[in-house]
Amino acid sequence: MSMQCGVFMTPYNPPSRTPRQVFDWAVNIAQICDAAGYADFMIGEHYTLGWENIPMPEAIIAACAQTTKQMRFAPMAHLLPYHDPATLAIRVGWLSQVMEGRYFLGVAPGGHHTDAILHGFDSISELPKRQLEALRMIERVWERKPFKEKGQFFQAGFPGPDTMPEYWVEIANNNPFGGREKLEIAVTALSMNSKSMEFAGARNYSPISFFGGTPQMKAHWDTWSKAMEAHGHVPERKRFRVCRDVFIADSDLEAKRRYLRSGMAQVWHKYLKEIYVKFGLFGGIIQDSGCQMSPKDIDDDFLAEHVILCGSPETVIEKLEALADQVGGWGQIVVNQHDSIDDPKPWEESLQRLAKEVCPKVKMPDIGRA
Amino acid sequence: MSMQCGVFMTPYNPPSRTPRQVFDWAVNIAQICDAAGYADFMIGEHYTLGWENIPMPEAIIAACAQTTKQMRFAPMAHLLPYHDPATLAIRVGWLSQVMEGRYFLGVAPGGHHTDAILHGFDSISELPKRQLEALRMIERVWERKPFKEKGQFFQAGFPGPDTMPEYWVEIANNNPFGGREKLEIAVTALSMNSKSMEFAGARNYSPISFFGGTPQMKAHWDTWSKAMEAHGHVPERKRFRVCRDVFIADSDLEAKRRYLRSGMAQVWHKYLKEIYVKFGLFGGIIQDSGCQMSPKDIDDDFLAEHVILCGSPETVIEKLEALADQVGGWGQIVVNQHDSIDDPKPWEESLQRLAKEVCPKVKMPDIGRA
Repeated sequence: MSMQCGVFMTPYNPPSRTPRQVFDWAVNIAQICDAAGYADFMIGEHYTLGWENIPMPEAIIAACAQTTKQMRFAPMAHLLPYHDPATLAIRVGWLSQVMEGRYFLGVAPGGHHTDAILHGFDSISELPKRQLEALRMIERVWERKPFKEKGQFFQAGFPGPDTMPEYWVEIANNNPFGGREKLEIAVTALSMNSKSMEFAGARNYSPISFFGGTPQMKAHWDTWSKAMEAHGHVPERKRFRVCRDVFIADSDLEAKRRYLRSGMAQVWHKYLKEIYVKFGLFGGIIQDSGCQMSPKDIDDDFLAEHVILCGSPETVIEKLEALADQVGGWGQIVVNQHDSIDDPKPWEESLQRLAKEVCPKVKMPDIGRA
Repeated sequence: MSMQCGVFMTPYNPPSRTPRQVFDWAVNIAQICDAAGYADFMIGEHYTLGWENIPMPEAIIAACAQTTKQMRFAPMAHLLPYHDPATLAIRVGWLSQVMEGRYFLGVAPGGHHTDAILHGFDSISELPKRQLEALRMIERVWERKPFKEKGQFFQAGFPGPDTMPEYWVEIANNNPFGGREKLEIAVTALSMNSKSMEFAGARNYSPISFFGGTPQMKAHWDTWSKAMEAHGHVPERKRFRVCRDVFIADSDLEAKRRYLRSGMAQVWHKYLKEIYVKFGLFGGIIQDSGCQMSPKDIDDDFLAEHVILCGSPETVIEKLEALADQVGGWGQIVVNQHDSIDDPKPWEESLQRLAKEVCPKVKMPDIGRA
């Protein structure tokens, strides 16, 4: 089995783009990736972030139901404290049926402060316990047995013929396609000590590692696999997804030239670099690079060499294999999307070449073994 | 201005249909109606009802963004007690921007007992006060001014540069397309004494009248227009939408023959008749008919004559004009959708003829006057 590729549509478009522009672009990229052979397409959910503005990943998924054929879609992630859990349980199940199983589910507590304020919270520290209660209620709804629960934060139930016989109707089956046990649930992690990998392993959810250098990737795998084993699950490398920025062209020089003119360079300059500096996310990457520098001094050359997998297909294959040798294998490389609306061709070519010229050739250690 | 036509996608498919079948059918009907000149396409939101199974009207709307050109779409209605209000406020605004203004909003407290049980409620009587609180918070989110409110049922807020300056990011503008004042909000009413028409009039929301005979239609208009005037708004007949079942073919005989073989007849037999009997909704219709009968004895002939507008284009025009003479005019006739998956052509022809051969010819009194 060769390494799969996937897409992360955060979406990372400048705040000047309209919701319709981002929507059309996302649906268009999904069609291109579906045709190129991408396995998974994940869409973020954020409510206030000008640079990451898709508040309803389900809208993109639904719009792609008829325009794509084989690729799976996931909200990555539904932010559980911001949803009525019964509403979300039914919508997740129904949409997975609309997608006829080309669906998996990302869950998260929500980590952005402005989103938390929008939802009336004083701090993001209140969110994880709400996520846990929401998950429990979602699972109970999917059991389709009569219950009623008033929790600390939410309430939910399920009707049965005895619950209210005078108003009984035939109940729709909006459970996940093929049954709950067929639904993959996945969780992302960014910081080295992210609690989400332990949370994922304890529940047999799949791990997705945002890039922060080899120490962080190793930590994500180790935390997840230990938690999996501690709870009686087998941690498989093929379930490990790792996210990277990738820019491919004929030559290394041309790839770098194209990268520098791309939306990917723009988002690092105007948005991501500041966030990475603020939250200390460059540490592992600088350590990997062997350079001695302050995160604030990171420039285009450093990004193109050590953050972005930028180059010819051969160069990208080499870099991926070197990384895999260091951290162990993974099942899927997930490429972050970046705005390509003004100059789509170089980016679309890069996406296609990753799927067709890189992934089938990468030798990945440890796949299929724990 | 001639009478407009609209679509109500409740959706009224048998529980044996899969979510994907209903989804594809809804998107397909929307394309046909958009091309035929329909003004509005409204989609219900229900979580447990086997015969009315679209729990996420936004999914249909998003899937139609690129496949339709002129028709407006609305969730009819978002059931406000079942949503986090901040999440819904942002999603409504964002989707209205994705639709570039081809969007209006239906709101309702939720009236189905099994949906209420799913959401952990003991009774539907708890729902209206939650709707009011949710509406207030949604409107506050759309003001885009910093606030934080912990209400009786919900909480919401809005971030500002002073709220949490260390985490400040550029805030996405996910307000309704063109601003809050451009967003039409609409409310449906079914029973004669429905409280929703007064609620709508008090807030300058548009009224949509489900069919229950002339006494009920008059009551809906009277209640709404009085509430409008009492709150300083001008009630215009062109804002009044009335829902009907319509089946059109070359002749009255052929229309009835087609109706009897249709999903429309099936839903009345297997689902709607029992509900209408249980909740006393046939009263005004029987009164209009001049027949003396028990609701339980209503049969196909009665339905085809007094409930469905069934016949040639000329017959349907006559019946619509006679109805309008009795109750005053309206701006839009909204046709309920019924399952046509196994035999789509007669139903699609009926939809097209309503838009092209009936609506332009109906003489409607009072349009443009209060």
